[in-house]
Amino acid sequence: MADLQKAMAENARAVGELLDRLLKVGDGREARLMEAMRYSSLGGGKRIRPFMVSASARLFAVAESCAQHVGAAIEMVHCYSLVHDDLPAMDDDDLRRGQPTCHIRFDEATAILAGDALLTRAFEVLAEPAAHPDPFVRSQLVLALAKAAGAEGMVGGQMLDLMAENERLNMPEVTRLQRMKTGALIAFSCEAGAILGKAAEPARHALKAYAHDLGLAFQIADDLLDVEGTAAEVGKKTGKDADAGKATFVSLLGVDRARSQAQILADQACRHLEMFDEKADYLKELARFVISRRM
Amino acid sequence: MADLQKAMAENARAVGELLDRLLKVGDGREARLMEAMRYSSLGGGKRIRPFMVSASARLFAVAESCAQHVGAAIEMVHCYSLVHDDLPAMDDDDLRRGQPTCHIRFDEATAILAGDALLTRAFEVLAEPAAHPDPFVRSQLVLALAKAAGAEGMVGGQMLDLMAENERLNMPEVTRLQRMKTGALIAFSCEAGAILGKAAEPARHALKAYAHDLGLAFQIADDLLDVEGTAAEVGKKTGKDADAGKATFVSLLGVDRARSQAQILADQACRHLEMFDEKADYLKELARFVISRRM
Repeated sequence: MADLQKAMAENARAVGELLDRLLKVGDGREARLMEAMRYSSLGGGKRIRPFMVSASARLFAVAESCAQHVGAAIEMVHCYSLVHDDLPAMDDDDLRRGQPTCHIRFDEATAILAGDALLTRAFEVLAEPAAHPDPFVRSQLVLALAKAAGAEGMVGGQMLDLMAENERLNMPEVTRLQRMKTGALIAFSCEAGAILGKAAEPARHALKAYAHDLGLAFQIADDLLDVEGTAAEVGKKTGKDADAGKATFVSLLGVDRARSQAQILADQACRHLEMFDEKADYLKELARFVISRRM
Repeated sequence: MADLQKAMAENARAVGELLDRLLKVGDGREARLMEAMRYSSLGGGKRIRPFMVSASARLFAVAESCAQHVGAAIEMVHCYSLVHDDLPAMDDDDLRRGQPTCHIRFDEATAILAGDALLTRAFEVLAEPAAHPDPFVRSQLVLALAKAAGAEGMVGGQMLDLMAENERLNMPEVTRLQRMKTGALIAFSCEAGAILGKAAEPARHALKAYAHDLGLAFQIADDLLDVEGTAAEVGKKTGKDADAGKATFVSLLGVDRARSQAQILADQACRHLEMFDEKADYLKELARFVISRRM
């Protein structure tokens, strides 16, 4: 696990530097927009999704710089989704990673536009040759990200989440919601390595299966943190789901069964990687890491 | 002009049908999201930008279906920008094309997400083979749309526009704002034909120059409508710019000079097309159309 954490920290630093280069403030009066984009995406974070890209790209000997560009694009999408989800009309959150959310630090209009511009920039980064020299790979990346982030993926999941307040979703409904809201982008992060490496179908399929289980394990861990963590540990308000009357894996299964379910999913995720040798060690360790994290 | 209006109506019908196919409502609980996306993009409209794509694609014998896919993607971006611009935190508009705006018809959260999902879907459409068989062309389209729609284009222009309330911008500042806010997407619409047709640099340059002048002429016509039109004609609230204390081409130049400036720009736009023969007739007529439109 020490190796994993070192590799994750190193990757997070590299992706952070790349984001810093990709989000340069210009000198126009609109510089405020780029400041809000940078505020929302450069404030640290574990960069778990970019690490998934790099760890899956290792399986196919993809150039590290390509994986990092794709990771940076995914991080932009992740950060835009947080900025919009935090808005007063949505989850109405004031705190994120221990800092004021974008619309608190700037204002609502700027936060909406900063999210829009981060999403747009993500597609720009994927379409640039730095993401991959082969334009076919680039258009596949754009296509897969758009599917993962759009109405049938992340945004659709957020719509479901908003509609679920004060409704008691059952287990299949919560599972579907989470597969869309958080699972789709995690799945793309893992699959991106296979797209970059022009991997054959069996390898791609194995990564998808891994990502599917990992995504659910990740979300259960998140639900556990919301119940058990303190705001100081987690860096955002906790106990939110219970306050909003939302069904979660924890409210449906209870803490103990949720924890053992996360463990089962993490083990299952790793078994999908058997066709890869020790090159998949980071991905396997990552599955154990996501269910043990404290923030 | 009769021919132009017939061709525009025919193209608008085809693009409307394509949008209808590209935005299919699924059967999940999140169907509300797709309904809001459809509400915001299928409600008519002149589809001027998709027509620009088709008219410029004609110069290079591009398949009509490719041009229509690209046009549909641009229309999604245009419609998303209207949905977000209309939000209470932004321009706070209740009426658009004579109908309640998306956040009035649905709610604010749904409008934010519908905009996000329309933007995302636009990139998906450009990355699909139906937009063009050559993946290099597809990634060029994605790149150019992202540049036009992002922080250095449309979204940056909207940021400038919000910051300009109760400030008196001068002529170069208003020109820069409008080149970003509305000009960039219009320029991409005209350039898209050249990208689709793998046109040589001189042709691409001519189209860019045309689009630049056309975009400004278009915006001046819009400012004139805001002053002279009634809400019933224009389908949205008029007199907004004056109410908000915003500098516009009309407030800076006066009505008469603004009108003659639009005429000069339209003529100038047409002169850039001299290298193309009568294949450019629609583009030339379009330049005259945008400055004469009453809605």
